[in-house]
Amino acid sequence: MTEPIATRFPVPPLDKLPEDIRERILAVQEKSGFVPNVFLAFAYRPDEFRAFFAYHDALMEKDSGLSKAEREMIVVATSAANQCHYCVIAHGAILRIRAKDPLIADQIAVNYRKADITPRQRAMLDFAMKVSREASTISEADFGALKAHGFSDDDIWDIAAIAAFFALSNRMANFTAMRPNDEFYMMGRLPK
Amino acid sequence: MTEPIATRFPVPPLDKLPEDIRERILAVQEKSGFVPNVFLAFAYRPDEFRAFFAYHDALMEKDSGLSKAEREMIVVATSAANQCHYCVIAHGAILRIRAKDPLIADQIAVNYRKADITPRQRAMLDFAMKVSREASTISEADFGALKAHGFSDDDIWDIAAIAAFFALSNRMANFTAMRPNDEFYMMGRLPK
Amino acid sequence: MTEPIATRFPVPPLDKLPEDIRERILAVQEKSGFVPNVFLAFAYRPDEFRAFFAYHDALMEKDSGLSKAEREMIVVATSAANQCHYCVIAHGAILRIRAKDPLIADQIAVNYRKADITPRQRAMLDFAMKVSREASTISEADFGALKAHGFSDDDIWDIAAIAAFFALSNRMANFTAMRPNDEFYMMGRLPK
Amino acid sequence: MTEPIATRFPVPPLDKLPEDIRERILAVQEKSGFVPNVFLAFAYRPDEFRAFFAYHDALMEKDSGLSKAEREMIVVATSAANQCHYCVIAHGAILRIRAKDPLIADQIAVNYRKADITPRQRAMLDFAMKVSREASTISEADFGALKAHGFSDDDIWDIAAIAAFFALSNRMANFTAMRPNDEFYMMGRLPK
Amino acid sequence: MTEPIATRFPVPPLDKLPEDIRERILAVQEKSGFVPNVFLAFAYRPDEFRAFFAYHDALMEKDSGLSKAEREMIVVATSAANQCHYCVIAHGAILRIRAKDPLIADQIAVNYRKADITPRQRAMLDFAMKVSREASTISEADFGALKAHGFSDDDIWDIAAIAAFFALSNRMANFTAMRPNDEFYMMGRLPK
Amino acid sequence: MTEPIATRFPVPPLDKLPEDIRERILAVQEKSGFVPNVFLAFAYRPDEFRAFFAYHDALMEKDSGLSKAEREMIVVATSAANQCHYCVIAHGAILRIRAKDPLIADQIAVNYRKADITPRQRAMLDFAMKVSREASTISEADFGALKAHGFSDDDIWDIAAIAAFFALSNRMANFTAMRPNDEFYMMGRLPK
Repeated sequence: MTEPIATRFPVPPLDKLPEDIRERILAVQEKSGFVPNVFLAFAYRPDEFRAFFAYHDALMEKDSGLSKAEREMIVVATSAANQCHYCVIAHGAILRIRAKDPLIADQIAVNYRKADITPRQRAMLDFAMKVSREASTISEADFGALKAHGFSDDDIWDIAAIAAFFALSNRMANFTAMRPNDEFYMMGRLPK
Repeated sequence: MTEPIATRFPVPPLDKLPEDIRERILAVQEKSGFVPNVFLAFAYRPDEFRAFFAYHDALMEKDSGLSKAEREMIVVATSAANQCHYCVIAHGAILRIRAKDPLIADQIAVNYRKADITPRQRAMLDFAMKVSREASTISEADFGALKAHGFSDDDIWDIAAIAAFFALSNRMANFTAMRPNDEFYMMGRLPK
Repeated sequence: MTEPIATRFPVPPLDKLPEDIRERILAVQEKSGFVPNVFLAFAYRPDEFRAFFAYHDALMEKDSGLSKAEREMIVVATSAANQCHYCVIAHGAILRIRAKDPLIADQIAVNYRKADITPRQRAMLDFAMKVSREASTISEADFGALKAHGFSDDDIWDIAAIAAFFALSNRMANFTAMRPNDEFYMMGRLPK
Repeated sequence: MTEPIATRFPVPPLDKLPEDIRERILAVQEKSGFVPNVFLAFAYRPDEFRAFFAYHDALMEKDSGLSKAEREMIVVATSAANQCHYCVIAHGAILRIRAKDPLIADQIAVNYRKADITPRQRAMLDFAMKVSREASTISEADFGALKAHGFSDDDIWDIAAIAAFFALSNRMANFTAMRPNDEFYMMGRLPK
Repeated sequence: MTEPIATRFPVPPLDKLPEDIRERILAVQEKSGFVPNVFLAFAYRPDEFRAFFAYHDALMEKDSGLSKAEREMIVVATSAANQCHYCVIAHGAILRIRAKDPLIADQIAVNYRKADITPRQRAMLDFAMKVSREASTISEADFGALKAHGFSDDDIWDIAAIAAFFALSNRMANFTAMRPNDEFYMMGRLPK
Repeated sequence: MTEPIATRFPVPPLDKLPEDIRERILAVQEKSGFVPNVFLAFAYRPDEFRAFFAYHDALMEKDSGLSKAEREMIVVATSAANQCHYCVIAHGAILRIRAKDPLIADQIAVNYRKADITPRQRAMLDFAMKVSREASTISEADFGALKAHGFSDDDIWDIAAIAAFFALSNRMANFTAMRPNDEFYMMGRLPK
């Protein structure tokens, strides 16, 4: 396999893309050194591209009672339960970097109950998994359990919204056979 | 219960909302005669509101090889599997109107395999359910089955993307205890 | 589809049916204005018809600590979990009428945990669902939880027996592809 | 435990029972040498007793394209899947006697796929299990598979109706903690 | 079927087997009066035979805070959940003998929650089932629940190790279609 | 956490261990540069230690129609399904080394259906997963599917036996909270 395929669907050439999408792609390439395949996969549908990344940024880039590493923990735990190749590998890399911990992503992907996390983070992931796997059974008691760990209503929305957004993302990645770039596998594993 | 609560989270007063969001809400109120609670629930988070409805419109309002009624069938079938109160009731109403069929929404909500739909629509819903429930097992054979019914690659993306978007939507509605407006229950049930 | 089919199996002509069965069918037609398809489907097997409706009446028509509306709640909740087209639509209609509530049946069918019911009714439905879905795990603790809501041992038998009877009924309706009569969809939705 | 309890609910004294029920119980005692606990458990509710045994007899005692042993195979296989103590032990005994085979009941209870049965009986049990576990997915293809083994539409009704009736029976036995009589365990295990 | 087949794989003739394996087989034959098919099935792979029975003996034959009957209860309960024909029938026989109770094995195989066991044995089987079915969720709380019944850490290891060993054994028996010897069905059912 | 704990149970000091076990531990330390925690965890029970590693070596070290890398693929895929922290991390490392492929272990752990493997290896893992998750449904058709890919009966035994052995191993690792050594995470990720 000389050049792995980013996604099952065609990837439009960069110069055929709408200006705003091309700029976003070039910006991430400049910052990361490569273009994560999720950008190429969604470029096939510009309107969905814009909504997807706007939603992503609204949850993952803003200020929150959850640290950026904690938000990535939610992504990795729920994406592993959904067996999402792209999301576990790519966001595992981001989690290692944001948590400055080379082991944490693999631990959470395999079994978050055994990971080196705090009881507060464990409660956060228990709830994220409930949103991801059986949201129809969420009740006020679940909010109570999280508040006992100091989470605010806004923090709880963040947990739920991230788990919900990646429910979408995992399904699109599995559907399009989105491939994680080879670069992600090693990111954050070696001390800087 | 004199006035049912739209959602577990606070609903900001209309005059405190950003201009674009207030306008969208007023427009839907003008068109429908009431404000569907999903608009009030997401108004708590303006950035997520914008991304959510941009994504929704990109899938549900555009031209597609799927009719608007067929797209609502996907919403109702997958939302029923997720036991999403808001989405089944509200989109059931929209499906009745778009299909001009007062029975179809209840049929699909209970058991789409027994609904009065075409074999092509049955194949569409089988795939939508696979995206919704076990996307990690999707394979090229699933594309083949859909193509045998005349669906194009773009149609298949539409089916998957709608199922994936409502995976997000169902989880947010269940999490926020979003309540369907009473108006939805009767919409499309009587001949015009 | 000019005339929808009531069931996969043949429906004997009325004048070939045993006297008692014909009378029961004519009586229900007189009362309801149409013959619910469950009567036509079971008429194929007169002995099973008699036992089925005797069992049904013993549970649903007698005096009980459960109101008739509450008994229909059990039918709708468990039939929805079993994806039983006939039972959700037909008993949803009966529930709307008996509860004098046009919204309650759809709420319970989609997710009874989000329905406008009392905590006592919620406990009743939690137990009915346990009988329906995992009766092998019922223990004395389940009886205790119901007694805390004021249910007597006889009430608890009624809950369990209704859930158990519709476990049979749902399977027969799904097996025979029993179709709910079109009349049921609108019953009880409009104020009298 | 000097005298095991037949059921969680009270058992009315024989002389307080309605005449027809007392007669049925005495008849079975005369024939079997003991009163199977299912008769005592249902005696608590005479109307349900009558309907239950009328239904049972309509399926299990009549002429059918299925032998009586085959009908008991369906009971044992589906009751084992429902973890129904009473039905597996009591109907296991009846199956051994009707099949004149001391091994068959245990084989079917543990894993019917490994039992010493014919391919036709295997197809019968596959379908019975589908009725018992996921009746909502039954389709015309299932009828085709059975017809390939020579089953008629009436035979197929019998298979489904037995699986459906014991869906009720298993739930009532688990709910009432119905205990199989000690006599059942050895019945049919020794050559006559 | 004049002579049932012990296993899907060939059984080497006794005189071709390594000395230690032949001796073990002759010893068990001398003691039991027949050769349990598990010995014939594993004889196909001498190294695996030796490791399998060494592991078995290390758990089942040694001194332990669990009685030998209790250890067989664990085997029967978990093997029933895995639908393992050989293990339920063969170890059911051993359980009857070790517990001197002709009913206990069938009770535990069908639904251990309804068996005539002590609360301590019930806690033991609850934990064994958790090891067998969802070991990834075991937490320190599970150890606490067992210690409340007087189990030591070593007893808990024994429970878990037996459940884990028969997770292996059940899979090998199902894979090789290992057949329980006819002798097992009646063992321990009659008073000595 | 200055020194992570290898396992929930005590680890005996090396000089208190039986000679053969101490030698095995020292040999693996010499070869690997550290003592994998599985050796320390099982050292608590010398007889089980000996049987466990004898079984392991009989399957993983011998000549086979499966390459050593392929055998590790089976371990990683089934251990991921069982959410076994130790086995996925430790055997993921071994797989990377034996396959000389830094990406393959993470791919198989997340979703083996999307991994860069041959159709033959895909069939091997499909069967291994069936042994691991639902061995009671294995039938002769499964053997046929593997033979179509050139697997012999002995190869198929190897696949099944490895999946079955790690069913045991995963349960013991989850039960003892066995921790993968930090060294495993990076092994095989960098070119030599």
